[in-house]
Amino acid sequence: MRLLLVAGTTRTAEIPGLSAAGASPEATAATPSADAEIVEYGDLVRGEMVPVSPAGCPTPAVMTRAVRELLGFELTVLDAGLAEPTGAPTVSLPVEPGADIREPDPVPNAEDAFAAGREFAHDLPDEELLVGETIPGGTTTALGVLTALGETEAVSSSLPENPLAHKREVVAEGLAASDLEPGGAVGDPLLAVRSVGDPVLAGVAGVATGAIETGVDLTLAGGTQMLAAAALVRHAGIEAPFRVATTSFVAADETAAVRETATSLDVNLAVTDPGFEHGDHVAFERYLAGVAKEGVGMGGALWLAERKGIDMSQVRDRIVSVYDRVVGDGP
Amino acid sequence: MRLLLVAGTTRTAEIPGLSAAGASPEATAATPSADAEIVEYGDLVRGEMVPVSPAGCPTPAVMTRAVRELLGFELTVLDAGLAEPTGAPTVSLPVEPGADIREPDPVPNAEDAFAAGREFAHDLPDEELLVGETIPGGTTTALGVLTALGETEAVSSSLPENPLAHKREVVAEGLAASDLEPGGAVGDPLLAVRSVGDPVLAGVAGVATGAIETGVDLTLAGGTQMLAAAALVRHAGIEAPFRVATTSFVAADETAAVRETATSLDVNLAVTDPGFEHGDHVAFERYLAGVAKEGVGMGGALWLAERKGIDMSQVRDRIVSVYDRVVGDGP
Repeated sequence: MRLLLVAGTTRTAEIPGLSAAGASPEATAATPSADAEIVEYGDLVRGEMVPVSPAGCPTPAVMTRAVRELLGFELTVLDAGLAEPTGAPTVSLPVEPGADIREPDPVPNAEDAFAAGREFAHDLPDEELLVGETIPGGTTTALGVLTALGETEAVSSSLPENPLAHKREVVAEGLAASDLEPGGAVGDPLLAVRSVGDPVLAGVAGVATGAIETGVDLTLAGGTQMLAAAALVRHAGIEAPFRVATTSFVAADETAAVRETATSLDVNLAVTDPGFEHGDHVAFERYLAGVAKEGVGMGGALWLAERKGIDMSQVRDRIVSVYDRVVGDGP
Repeated sequence: MRLLLVAGTTRTAEIPGLSAAGASPEATAATPSADAEIVEYGDLVRGEMVPVSPAGCPTPAVMTRAVRELLGFELTVLDAGLAEPTGAPTVSLPVEPGADIREPDPVPNAEDAFAAGREFAHDLPDEELLVGETIPGGTTTALGVLTALGETEAVSSSLPENPLAHKREVVAEGLAASDLEPGGAVGDPLLAVRSVGDPVLAGVAGVATGAIETGVDLTLAGGTQMLAAAALVRHAGIEAPFRVATTSFVAADETAAVRETATSLDVNLAVTDPGFEHGDHVAFERYLAGVAKEGVGMGGALWLAERKGIDMSQVRDRIVSVYDRVVGDGP
């Protein structure tokens, strides 16, 4: 079992009010680089900004790392437009950080990233793959892709109050900047991701396509961003079954409509509840309050833990120890 | 426990007759990229050339991977001047492929690679590190460094008949091209590695220095290239103890003088014998005939297996299964 973590950035995240990732624009841009280090090493390495909100809510990288420490699955980080150096080893996809989707052509190398991700997945020796993402602002670009493809126009949020109306305005501006109507990219996933998506979605769709073509057991580990990736795969004409595994926090977000979207895309949806109400830690409290919810493969890691018979109390204990280790290194 | 595998190239390897790595110049340049994939994934990914000699002698990456499959240690590949893309995730050091040491200034960024490796090792969370290398032609550049530092002028070889006289001629030309006498870089390791070394030695010396400064338990996993790295560390003024772990094949090579060099550098030498005479496979036969001998962390991996109580018959069985898997993918 290997987790492919596709990590990158989009300047769409700089639009105020869209994302909970990072306390400042600099911290937001550095979050995916730090996430990769946390899942790889269990601690920050080159990174200096601890991706924990001022109120103590940690990046979901902490949860994924906790499960990795219990199960020992393999990890490969794909650099799909990181803006800051990471100390985690990476395989680079040929794509730059994404521009703000309100500009025309924000991901000009989407096709290259897709093709390289697809070829990479063809060559991997694994029989099972989890694919996760880390990209601040990613639910807005996911909404862009879903809208351009004519799918359910709903996504989740890392904020307790989903700024969905704001995201829809941004997406509408993005579609206009790229001369697209809602549904204007039906059957043309590369046009959708290039025009109103981000480089991580291009990479995820590429590796997912390659994995399915190779007969790998594929799990897209995440919430509505992974449903957008699933939509890209379906609009590429691929009908084979695969799974999206997300957290109970995303599933409980009615604005995100994940069950409806999964059904309409004909993908299996696995929802795992880490039982944070049984824990006593600020990290659990913040997730129970609806902050962060998912990301960095968290939903897939929890699903894997459950499948392998790991008790969620063990996962919670390990989350606390990873949290203390990572935050202990902070400024 | 983590293996840092420092992977790169030097055009010194293109001088005919120096190295057993690769059947052609193209294959030689691609060998470190393939080695990284084999240790990372247990198979080739992007690589197309199987690093197995026409007579069936496999790269020592196969041996290191075999131990990794038995013990599950972590791996981080550092790109210190790879010439071909690798499918293994890498952390890049700021250095290019090395030029032929018969040219002046073959490693102009040696200091940058050293500094970046040192800083990277400072930041790693591990308490124990193995450091390995993969760079064809590396024993010749190791001889260059040892000679420039005024240390024992002897190295091992991936060929059964060590072309030591030829290597000494190349090193003499290299020293002349850089206006250095033998011993002319005593106490100035960066001058030695920049003038007659290679980018991998610069990176290994950097991470070794950083690890020692951080109090990490350090094992340089390899033969005479790692003794050259040890010499660089000692000439940087570092007196703390550390270990070089190599194979019985290197230790049995009288031309390599590893015990004398280790003693003179005051490093602990661990020699591990994988008992290949008890196996029945072309890979074992070729190593017993003195081909390859060491590399890609092999000596350190065997040492680790022995320390962890893994029976060498298990290691040999796993070597055969990795060999069959990797060669089965070949052209």
